[in-house]
Amino acid sequence: MIPATLVITVTAFIGLKWAALQFWLISRIKIEATTDAGDDEAEDPLLSDENNETTARLKEIYTAIYEGAESFLRAEYKVCLLFCSVFTVIIFVLVGWGAGWDMVKGALTAVSFLLGALTSMASGYLGMKVAVYSNVRTTISAAKPGWRDCFNTAFRAGAVMGFSLCGLGILVLYLTMLSYKLYFPQANWLALTECLTGFGLGGSVIAMFGRVGGGIYTKAADVGADLVGKVVHGIPEDDPRNPATIADNVGDNVGDVAGMGSDLFGSFAESTCAALVIGSSIGVASGWDAMVFPVLVSGVGIIVCLFASFIATDIWPVKKEAQVEMALKVQLIATTLLMIPAVYFTARWYLPSEFEIKSTVGSDTLTLHPWQAFLCVTMGAVGGLIIGLVTEYYTSHSYSPVREVANACKTGAATNMIYGIALGYKSAIIPVLVLAMVVYGSFSLCDMYGVSLAAIGFLANLATGLTIDVYGPVCDNAGGIAEMAELDPSVREKTDALDAAGNTTAAIGKGFAIGSAALVSLALFGAFVTRIRHSSNDALFEHGVNMLEPLTFAFGIIGGMIPFAFAAMTMKSVGLAAMEMVQEVQRQFDENPQLLDDNPSERPDYDACIAISTNASLKEMVPPGAMVIFTPLLTGIFFGVNAISGLLVGALIASIQLAISMSNSGGAWDNAKKYIEKQPTDSELGGKGSDIHKAAVVGDTVGDPFKDTSGPALNIVMKLMAVLSLVFADTFYAIHGGGGVFNLK
Amino acid sequence: MIPATLVITVTAFIGLKWAALQFWLISRIKIEATTDAGDDEAEDPLLSDENNETTARLKEIYTAIYEGAESFLRAEYKVCLLFCSVFTVIIFVLVGWGAGWDMVKGALTAVSFLLGALTSMASGYLGMKVAVYSNVRTTISAAKPGWRDCFNTAFRAGAVMGFSLCGLGILVLYLTMLSYKLYFPQANWLALTECLTGFGLGGSVIAMFGRVGGGIYTKAADVGADLVGKVVHGIPEDDPRNPATIADNVGDNVGDVAGMGSDLFGSFAESTCAALVIGSSIGVASGWDAMVFPVLVSGVGIIVCLFASFIATDIWPVKKEAQVEMALKVQLIATTLLMIPAVYFTARWYLPSEFEIKSTVGSDTLTLHPWQAFLCVTMGAVGGLIIGLVTEYYTSHSYSPVREVANACKTGAATNMIYGIALGYKSAIIPVLVLAMVVYGSFSLCDMYGVSLAAIGFLANLATGLTIDVYGPVCDNAGGIAEMAELDPSVREKTDALDAAGNTTAAIGKGFAIGSAALVSLALFGAFVTRIRHSSNDALFEHGVNMLEPLTFAFGIIGGMIPFAFAAMTMKSVGLAAMEMVQEVQRQFDENPQLLDDNPSERPDYDACIAISTNASLKEMVPPGAMVIFTPLLTGIFFGVNAISGLLVGALIASIQLAISMSNSGGAWDNAKKYIEKQPTDSELGGKGSDIHKAAVVGDTVGDPFKDTSGPALNIVMKLMAVLSLVFADTFYAIHGGGGVFNLK
Repeated sequence: MIPATLVITVTAFIGLKWAALQFWLISRIKIEATTDAGDDEAEDPLLSDENNETTARLKEIYTAIYEGAESFLRAEYKVCLLFCSVFTVIIFVLVGWGAGWDMVKGALTAVSFLLGALTSMASGYLGMKVAVYSNVRTTISAAKPGWRDCFNTAFRAGAVMGFSLCGLGILVLYLTMLSYKLYFPQANWLALTECLTGFGLGGSVIAMFGRVGGGIYTKAADVGADLVGKVVHGIPEDDPRNPATIADNVGDNVGDVAGMGSDLFGSFAESTCAALVIGSSIGVASGWDAMVFPVLVSGVGIIVCLFASFIATDIWPVKKEAQVEMALKVQLIATTLLMIPAVYFTARWYLPSEFEIKSTVGSDTLTLHPWQAFLCVTMGAVGGLIIGLVTEYYTSHSYSPVREVANACKTGAATNMIYGIALGYKSAIIPVLVLAMVVYGSFSLCDMYGVSLAAIGFLANLATGLTIDVYGPVCDNAGGIAEMAELDPSVREKTDALDAAGNTTAAIGKGFAIGSAALVSLALFGAFVTRIRHSSNDALFEHGVNMLEPLTFAFGIIGGMIPFAFAAMTMKSVGLAAMEMVQEVQRQFDENPQLLDDNPSERPDYDACIAISTNASLKEMVPPGAMVIFTPLLTGIFFGVNAISGLLVGALIASIQLAISMSNSGGAWDNAKKYIEKQPTDSELGGKGSDIHKAAVVGDTVGDPFKDTSGPALNIVMKLMAVLSLVFADTFYAIHGGGGVFNLK
Repeated sequence: MIPATLVITVTAFIGLKWAALQFWLISRIKIEATTDAGDDEAEDPLLSDENNETTARLKEIYTAIYEGAESFLRAEYKVCLLFCSVFTVIIFVLVGWGAGWDMVKGALTAVSFLLGALTSMASGYLGMKVAVYSNVRTTISAAKPGWRDCFNTAFRAGAVMGFSLCGLGILVLYLTMLSYKLYFPQANWLALTECLTGFGLGGSVIAMFGRVGGGIYTKAADVGADLVGKVVHGIPEDDPRNPATIADNVGDNVGDVAGMGSDLFGSFAESTCAALVIGSSIGVASGWDAMVFPVLVSGVGIIVCLFASFIATDIWPVKKEAQVEMALKVQLIATTLLMIPAVYFTARWYLPSEFEIKSTVGSDTLTLHPWQAFLCVTMGAVGGLIIGLVTEYYTSHSYSPVREVANACKTGAATNMIYGIALGYKSAIIPVLVLAMVVYGSFSLCDMYGVSLAAIGFLANLATGLTIDVYGPVCDNAGGIAEMAELDPSVREKTDALDAAGNTTAAIGKGFAIGSAALVSLALFGAFVTRIRHSSNDALFEHGVNMLEPLTFAFGIIGGMIPFAFAAMTMKSVGLAAMEMVQEVQRQFDENPQLLDDNPSERPDYDACIAISTNASLKEMVPPGAMVIFTPLLTGIFFGVNAISGLLVGALIASIQLAISMSNSGGAWDNAKKYIEKQPTDSELGGKGSDIHKAAVVGDTVGDPFKDTSGPALNIVMKLMAVLSLVFADTFYAIHGGGGVFNLK
């Protein structure tokens, strides 16, 4: 059998190589007309000599967006690095102290943390670079006849991000493991994996700042740009005369791409760490290769995603608009289905035919077989797909829920809001039932190890998921660039169609992300409980987490409040920054009315709007992030481990509902608006510009922070709280035997 | 010492007598001018001979509202009775079977259930009658100079409801207890109180239907009437030309008064039942009087509220507008403070100096003293007051949060929505912390008995709370009547000011209601666990409720989903009915354009709108109610007691957050709109009719179902699920020893 180390490193390298290949394919599209261009470029009317002005304008816009995104990420990562360096010291000291002044353990955990954080930042930065690089090239491809080129360009941009992130993540994580192995030669894999959890925490912390910071940036600009249409009539969102337009496009890259990249990297890191720490006993009994089974699944996932990606780009290439959505959907479903046999054989080959796991609660030892592990991963993968398809049902305007919301716009913005919020709440029903079944099934099969494997299963198709997730904002931005460069409206129509399909499939991707977040959090919580139980020699948590412990229940309701407080803070930040943005735009138009001319001689001051978004997001991303990080930390230190366990249960239960409902309400409002825009102006829904459309725009604007700031960040809230508790478990136990500073019973 | 039975019956009678006296005082205000009227009436210009037409119009409106409300309640109670008769049989059979074919137990539980349901309906009906009777009289009083008369009329209307409901509730509950005592002569108080829990369930089931049915009715009409202003410009909500106006006013009486009355009766019944069943062991050891301590507290509460009510009506009567809010607030605070010594002496006199309670988890027996019970009740009362004051801070336009929401209207409806939702989420923070402290404090002091006593404490000032809760809709309706009868605008302004103060203090009342609901649910949950534990001889739940049991956790997230699904269903029902309403109004105006004339010769078809609200609410109230009732029932039957315990934990955690945030978002939007209306038209906020005001109206409309349909009904969701589980505990245990039909471990 090929050693696991070889498989993992090779698959990771293949992922990175594949990403490089995709990038090279994109780079062949030139922005400028060149004489040595290939056939495609020579035919391109956009790049002929007559269009020199357009080319110049494209380059100008591209440069403005690139510089804006670059400078924002620099500023954001500066804050992140500052935070991380302080937190690295905290980890070093507290973890080292908690482990009985074992400062090596503190140091290794702190190093993992830093590596996780740096890899996460690298992923985000890379994603932004690729996205900005590809947006303008997608615009150029869209200006050519046919759908295949432009679809493939955007899709490849996604693939660069998807495969490089997966490859990089696996590589850094695995190399860290290998080097820690040198320090733990006595197969003390539990200690090794415990040190490794810092990696998950690092990924998560940056994910939190990236999602929130990027989310505030992009939605402040987006909401601001939308509202300008209300304040100054007749200026659409991406009109070059709209001063917020560059900020809006920068936002798509730093929020929807970089933020999301960090987010999904965090999910990957945490789920892998959770599975490794819970399964470390397998390694002790059956060797290294069996223990790293979760990493193997991710590695194999890269190969499966790679083969599946030919379906969209080559086997059934997109030839017309109607095929776009189907191509993306087929891609996701095919990857998931192909994963099933791949996981089966990985489990059969690398897991011993019989292995043991100690149960989290009670004193049973479970004897497991590879097929059980395989079933857990499969339940996750299939569960993710079902949740994704339900999400699509609730957010695509091909189905009745979104059409009902569109109809509700007839009686104004208020009924639109009522219907949209109700839709979001209702859309949580089936996903929650699916999650409950996956939890019950995987837990019953393999205890907490099963839950962590199910979480890995949710993320097995990560490369494909990310490809599709990045594809959306790239198309969106390509459309924005087309409008700003005043290209033919047909270009914008094409990118809009590509974007609409991306919105729908991004909804499916969100299903995977939410499901995995819920299971990862539960698995991390289980690992936390196990660790405290072992430390206390079964004095604590022997009978599990008792919700009728007063402290546990009290913190249970506090935990339930955290996601609401978090959503409130992030939404309000968006609202605040958007209002500032509108005032700035208003000021520019007041001081310089000729900016509004049909062919203005001057460009508005884009940089002022970029500065507003940047400052708002840097200022506003810290408090919610700090709340999520310090609540479990301080709870554990002052109130002890019973309080923490309640806090995690409450946060987990409330986050799941709120994350699903906010994401779906937002998606539904967006697509209800798009549905109305597609109707002719003499239809019942009135089409673009009607009062009904205006009511729909209100919903879309409210939905922006719902679906792109608060909703997806709630996934991180639950995971981050859980992984943080796990990293500091020993520290919490060291204070009054888990009673905390106040030593409450 | 006076026997407890005497104290309880006498205080209940005093409550009823006092209510009768208040009613008599209201009835002295005549609608028609009479020659034998007192001084006040003789001076009243409204009732002079010149105003015969106005008098006739007032009577006409009064009759229309009365008939609408009466016929709706009849129809609603018919559905309720049908449901209850079926459910009585279910209880009789299932509870009897669960108790080992002890059909007497089944019968007694079924009878308690019916009595609870009937008392709840009687409370709602009574409230509606009093409110309708008093609305028009408040209008008449408001037409007179001075504030005292009209304030007192509305306040007395509230007092009729408050004191009669408390008196009736205590009386029926206590007489049921006394008659059951005849059947349980061997001091088998546990069995007696278990049978009595049916009373709480009955109260809750009707509360659910009353709140949801009434809530849909009133908000469909209200939202519909509001939206007419958008569809047909220039017609305010209460304009007599608005066909939805009578339905709107009927709705205030059946939803905000009758629905709320049933709701609070349910809270009272459940919290008392919870405390009695948990404290039944005290009765066995220390006698009947000690056991009925919770009922005594409620009885003493009536007397305290009675004395405190003189403050508002006589000691510091309201003389000007600015004093209205303060009068109501002082009333609530004074009652709460006066309750503290009253409870202290009740505890000292009626509880033995030392008594024992078995702990819910583990095998400890706690030795308690009266001061601990007193502290628990006090924590509840003070906690309720703090939550109430925080609620006021977040919903009154005297403070910055609502003003921020009003400012957000400047950039349109979207930012108003974002700010309002964020406000609601944020407003849950302090209440949840207070609740957590009360839970921890009372639980640590007296285990679950303490939690149930704290719940009683939250409701100790129920008579005053209800007085103020009813006061609001009475003033609101009085204003509606003034507008419909085309009285001088000053009358409407006066009732509006009274109503605004009522809105704020109603928010305080909601704080008590939510806090009590959370604690009652926890106490009922504790009682459920104890009962299963005893039935299983400690085989189940000996170590509490373990959230790491796969089934428990899986149902935990399902439980967390229930309140969201419930909110979705009820909100959508309101939206649907409101849209029907708007279409009906549009139809009337289309077919009969002269209805819109300034002095129309014809009245619109009010009855058509009433029919829409009635049909919508009867049709739509059943599915959400049935979901809440049958989810725990079927979960228990099919999946067993571990599943139920998870379900209850999840539902409780999610309901608390959602109930607080929905109620407060709604209240804030309403008052932000009122704040903008109070500004002059040349101010920054533009005043009534400006675009900013229109944006605020959108928020208010969305807030209507938030604060008056879904939000408050969520209190009932958590309590109902918990009390139902308790009533059927034996039944669930009887199926595979608590494993359910599927016998999952």
